[in-house]
Amino acid sequence: MKIAVDAMGGDFAPKAIIEGVMLAKQEFPTIEFQLYGNEEAIKPYLTDDTHIKLIHTDEKIESDDEPVKAIRRKKQASMVLAAKAVKNGEADAMFSAGNTGALLAAGLFIVGRIPQIERPGLMTTMPVFGNKSAGFDFIDMGANADNKPEHLLDFAILASYYAEHVRGVKKPRVALLNNGSEASKGSDLTKKTYALLEQEPGLNFIGNLEARDLLTGAADVVVTDGFTGNAVLKATEGTALAITSLLKESILNSGLKGKLGAVLLKDSLKSMKNELDYSSHGGAVLFGLKAPVVKTHGSTGPEAVQATIRQIHKMLEQHVVSDLVAYYHEKSQLESID
Amino acid sequence: MKIAVDAMGGDFAPKAIIEGVMLAKQEFPTIEFQLYGNEEAIKPYLTDDTHIKLIHTDEKIESDDEPVKAIRRKKQASMVLAAKAVKNGEADAMFSAGNTGALLAAGLFIVGRIPQIERPGLMTTMPVFGNKSAGFDFIDMGANADNKPEHLLDFAILASYYAEHVRGVKKPRVALLNNGSEASKGSDLTKKTYALLEQEPGLNFIGNLEARDLLTGAADVVVTDGFTGNAVLKATEGTALAITSLLKESILNSGLKGKLGAVLLKDSLKSMKNELDYSSHGGAVLFGLKAPVVKTHGSTGPEAVQATIRQIHKMLEQHVVSDLVAYYHEKSQLESID
Repeated sequence: MKIAVDAMGGDFAPKAIIEGVMLAKQEFPTIEFQLYGNEEAIKPYLTDDTHIKLIHTDEKIESDDEPVKAIRRKKQASMVLAAKAVKNGEADAMFSAGNTGALLAAGLFIVGRIPQIERPGLMTTMPVFGNKSAGFDFIDMGANADNKPEHLLDFAILASYYAEHVRGVKKPRVALLNNGSEASKGSDLTKKTYALLEQEPGLNFIGNLEARDLLTGAADVVVTDGFTGNAVLKATEGTALAITSLLKESILNSGLKGKLGAVLLKDSLKSMKNELDYSSHGGAVLFGLKAPVVKTHGSTGPEAVQATIRQIHKMLEQHVVSDLVAYYHEKSQLESID
Repeated sequence: MKIAVDAMGGDFAPKAIIEGVMLAKQEFPTIEFQLYGNEEAIKPYLTDDTHIKLIHTDEKIESDDEPVKAIRRKKQASMVLAAKAVKNGEADAMFSAGNTGALLAAGLFIVGRIPQIERPGLMTTMPVFGNKSAGFDFIDMGANADNKPEHLLDFAILASYYAEHVRGVKKPRVALLNNGSEASKGSDLTKKTYALLEQEPGLNFIGNLEARDLLTGAADVVVTDGFTGNAVLKATEGTALAITSLLKESILNSGLKGKLGAVLLKDSLKSMKNELDYSSHGGAVLFGLKAPVVKTHGSTGPEAVQATIRQIHKMLEQHVVSDLVAYYHEKSQLESID
């Protein structure tokens, strides 16, 4: 198993990335890691260089680079080289904490799509509040700005397969994000998608889900178009941030009594924060490509890098992508017979 | 000034509705209230019947009635009679805390649209976290499932006028909800809408806003299609609810120390809750109709009813709808000359 790592992507690269890889090596000693990036910057954190290939490059993609341009012009960038390694079969999967747009572009234009999947989607496992061990797979988080019903059907198939084989959920309950729970509700897009999901054999489609119930664990997979997915995710993030900072502020303004209360509550607040942290599920998968391409947050630390490598390991071990390639190939053969 | 009131809509009707009207009467003694509903049920709460017209009816629309059907069949329902009073010029505006879908239908099919506005939108003033006196007008919250760029332009014009004349914001900053802050970002709908908003004279368009920054007060008006607006609003609601219940739960599970902390923090938590409460800004306006049609939450109490009547009073006093009717009329005249 070979994983290509963009060692230069993210706010704390290469330190956090390499430290994460070192943690992952202890968990999975047989994985070969191909580290793309600045040799001099990487070396101080390489505490163990067995099964490590360090490929030096000076070029890297910055977080504010225009994605498609950066991919086309910075041909020696660490992210581009990692993607090329996957394309050329030298690596089985790639990992980056860098510029999301650039990684989407690298995935699409270098690694390439599964032929029958017109639009890959960005998927992440989100937390279920009040149940640490649970989670649900949310797709598309925003790889696309406009989607057709057929794209959402692909998202459902991909994420359902992931939930079953990577997260071990039996017969994952698949829901469609919609503006009402009744089957008749929705936009032109969601109504047509509903009809497709209902007809698809092998999917355990349980109907519509409203954004209000997203975090309740009512579904194992939630499907939506990239525009709505992105908006809902950012609204969730923004609200969580606003509430916690509001809470902090009202504590600071409440005098000694409030501050004493906050000290006593510290453990509760900490356990709440843990519950909200979903990096333990790994990173976001650009799903629908010929190989796993996985992104973690730019501000990610070593533990989140380790969790993402665990996720990639599981995806490879379970042959998630190759099974899906075979599934889509077979499906298209059957359709051409019809 | 005459306001038609659906006295039977909402979870605590008619008690909460009539108590709210009684509070509003003290604030605005000259408003004539037309109360539609069950006379016997209403009377106990009518502590002052000056400027009150009570119009008895036995029929009402239930919260689970199918909206359009209910409006068509229950011709004597309190909500339908209130809408008819507006249509016939017997009342200047209407208020209900009942079935939202039915009120949208009553607004569209009974009160009627401003001729040039193809799709009215549902608008509410949302809170800005950390700044109690601030707020922003969010439209469309979900009156529509599919919108065209021209609809969003109308929403911007309507809400901008409202922010200026009802909330007293000078040159309201109008933003478009989008999946990135750059002008080039977005779906087909948001890109086309961006171009329209940019060109519209009289709008202070400040560009795109991401859902993450919705509650920060970065704009006075935020425009989006009804599907996205509904999803974002419900995600915000769901997250706020999930976090507060998670906080409660972790306090309950934290033993004596945590509970003591919670007692000491009580005031802080309460002041936070106040900050999140936005019913003081009034209800949701179905905007683009020939008269103000305003909805408050079904679980609303007397103070929120009073706040909504204050809002309707201001809309009428400032001639918001009649000014907009004149504006659109003039605009269409000019366009026919071009």
